[in-house]
Amino acid sequence: MEAPTAPEWQVDVWLNTPAPLELSQFRGRVVLLHAFQMLCPGYVSHAVPQAERVHREYAELGVSVVGLHTVFEHHAAMTPVALEAFLHEYRVTHPVGADVAVAGTPVPETMNRCGMRGTPTLVLIDRAGKLRLHEFERMDDLRLGMMLGRLLAEGLQAGGATQEAGSRLVISRSDGTGVSSWPAG
Amino acid sequence: MEAPTAPEWQVDVWLNTPAPLELSQFRGRVVLLHAFQMLCPGYVSHAVPQAERVHREYAELGVSVVGLHTVFEHHAAMTPVALEAFLHEYRVTHPVGADVAVAGTPVPETMNRCGMRGTPTLVLIDRAGKLRLHEFERMDDLRLGMMLGRLLAEGLQAGGATQEAGSRLVISRSDGTGVSSWPAG
Amino acid sequence: MEAPTAPEWQVDVWLNTPAPLELSQFRGRVVLLHAFQMLCPGYVSHAVPQAERVHREYAELGVSVVGLHTVFEHHAAMTPVALEAFLHEYRVTHPVGADVAVAGTPVPETMNRCGMRGTPTLVLIDRAGKLRLHEFERMDDLRLGMMLGRLLAEGLQAGGATQEAGSRLVISRSDGTGVSSWPAG
Amino acid sequence: MEAPTAPEWQVDVWLNTPAPLELSQFRGRVVLLHAFQMLCPGYVSHAVPQAERVHREYAELGVSVVGLHTVFEHHAAMTPVALEAFLHEYRVTHPVGADVAVAGTPVPETMNRCGMRGTPTLVLIDRAGKLRLHEFERMDDLRLGMMLGRLLAEGLQAGGATQEAGSRLVISRSDGTGVSSWPAG
Repeated sequence: MEAPTAPEWQVDVWLNTPAPLELSQFRGRVVLLHAFQMLCPGYVSHAVPQAERVHREYAELGVSVVGLHTVFEHHAAMTPVALEAFLHEYRVTHPVGADVAVAGTPVPETMNRCGMRGTPTLVLIDRAGKLRLHEFERMDDLRLGMMLGRLLAEGLQAGGATQEAGSRLVISRSDGTGVSSWPAG
Repeated sequence: MEAPTAPEWQVDVWLNTPAPLELSQFRGRVVLLHAFQMLCPGYVSHAVPQAERVHREYAELGVSVVGLHTVFEHHAAMTPVALEAFLHEYRVTHPVGADVAVAGTPVPETMNRCGMRGTPTLVLIDRAGKLRLHEFERMDDLRLGMMLGRLLAEGLQAGGATQEAGSRLVISRSDGTGVSSWPAG
Repeated sequence: MEAPTAPEWQVDVWLNTPAPLELSQFRGRVVLLHAFQMLCPGYVSHAVPQAERVHREYAELGVSVVGLHTVFEHHAAMTPVALEAFLHEYRVTHPVGADVAVAGTPVPETMNRCGMRGTPTLVLIDRAGKLRLHEFERMDDLRLGMMLGRLLAEGLQAGGATQEAGSRLVISRSDGTGVSSWPAG
Repeated sequence: MEAPTAPEWQVDVWLNTPAPLELSQFRGRVVLLHAFQMLCPGYVSHAVPQAERVHREYAELGVSVVGLHTVFEHHAAMTPVALEAFLHEYRVTHPVGADVAVAGTPVPETMNRCGMRGTPTLVLIDRAGKLRLHEFERMDDLRLGMMLGRLLAEGLQAGGATQEAGSRLVISRSDGTGVSSWPAG
């Protein structure tokens, strides 16, 4: 059974990016999309630093991180101006878009169309734009790393352009030397 | 530059396994070899639970975890009987071998041959028996997951036998349903 | 050198309390006053759960916890309605007052009068209404406990009414039995 | 009901002290006695750093920390030579005594006489040598601080010698200045 194509998000305010973003721009890269609300405790203590860290450490290897602010409660508290202050205070540097509000319902457009049940929700999209993971609740680092490592590898085998970056991922030592000295003799 | 073949370990006492293990038995699987000393604080608080967790959660997907007790100090304190008590108290269930002592030097055989600089040291060997990572000091879960995910993927693309297990790794939801419900409509 | 009398706070919106509070009401109790901003990461991950825990576990022994929302930046983001949502999401049940804004300056009234340098700030006031600690930056649990224990004890020696509650603090076992069984024989 | 007098410990090997210690030497000080086994995971990750920290930060204020190695299982693994290596590796600098073994039973002398149920066990003895707390299982920092603060305060009110040190405990700021600047005006 093939994975479905991930749908476009609907965003009306973007932060941390000079221009609006579309999912189709990221073809060829692995996309980590995380839906959150700025006043969600679990998000703030776990998912924010996790997503930001993936952005800072793995962008170069082919992962693009995008936040989606899916406000479905406390709308008066989580406005765009509050979101901007939040991103500043929490040192979030990856792009974040505000999900489009829908008249007559508390659930915003993208959240509704994607069937998200709450926050935090984490979505992984592969290099071909296919939806590969959609998970509600926090995800631990080991499991997230496993999935990202596999999705990054898929592109490497097929193509070649990112081969070099990928190799650096696994062949390295903490002191910067290669592994060819192992074994020593 | 091709990765070198990982050398065999030299072990004289095995725990948590009915029979002695050889690296060559693990061809086709990804091997996480971690060298430790039972009285090393960093190992006990971080590397032990990390290695045991990989063993419990990812053995089914193709990762084999092996501990190597490389005693190079406090030899009178870290004997096999002490190691056995340690593994019991720390609920370590993956196989652990005691590196062979060498007369006239505090550094044991495998540790010396492999050029390990201390504990904890973490080594990753791919499905083809090639050495892909040799790192001194603690490794965080995200980075370890990234590497394991990539090494597991290599075998999946080439072969087919483990395809099924690998697919389960990335296509799942926390509630057990598939991702085909995303998007909802 | 005697400790100075703690000044009254100036608050225009109260949450988690049926009526406005005044410091003078707390004479006879130890008061933990913590100044915060809801979008301050250090506060949210450390000072909030710490203050709430003192409130839940030590109110009975004589400690009153009061939060003071001292907004001096991002005023448009940290409004009373946002604060109310924040307290709800973070399960904060102790009383919180919003420091009174002052025209022409970003620093609110109480924060300015008390010489607070930023958030989080923690203030301890003894049973006699004297200021005993004013500290900027996070405080660890052990040190906070030490100070609260000492301040609580001062009242116990002088008076008697809270003697019983105080005794329960130190004479207890995790299984609920007393310590008289120690030694066993 | 008055607290019972704490009994003497029975120790045959002492580490981190130039001479054997007796409980009676500590009259006038608050004693934190913690019973442990070096291979007990909960002890190593929580109780060791906690006890060592109290020793390093609160000895000056009147708290004496003593460890008691109460081996009741894996006797061949937790010998004095292993304990010495353990204390070195875990940077434990406070005095530790090995509880005296008893022929015909796995439980050592002091552990048995004091009715300890296992490790970690934490015991608090006041300035007058009275037993004030005997608790099995880990204790959190806030609660331990509360108890130590109260026990330290008892001596301060009665006497006067340690008044100065005690005052420093609660009247201080993180930048080293006093609290007299609060309020500012």
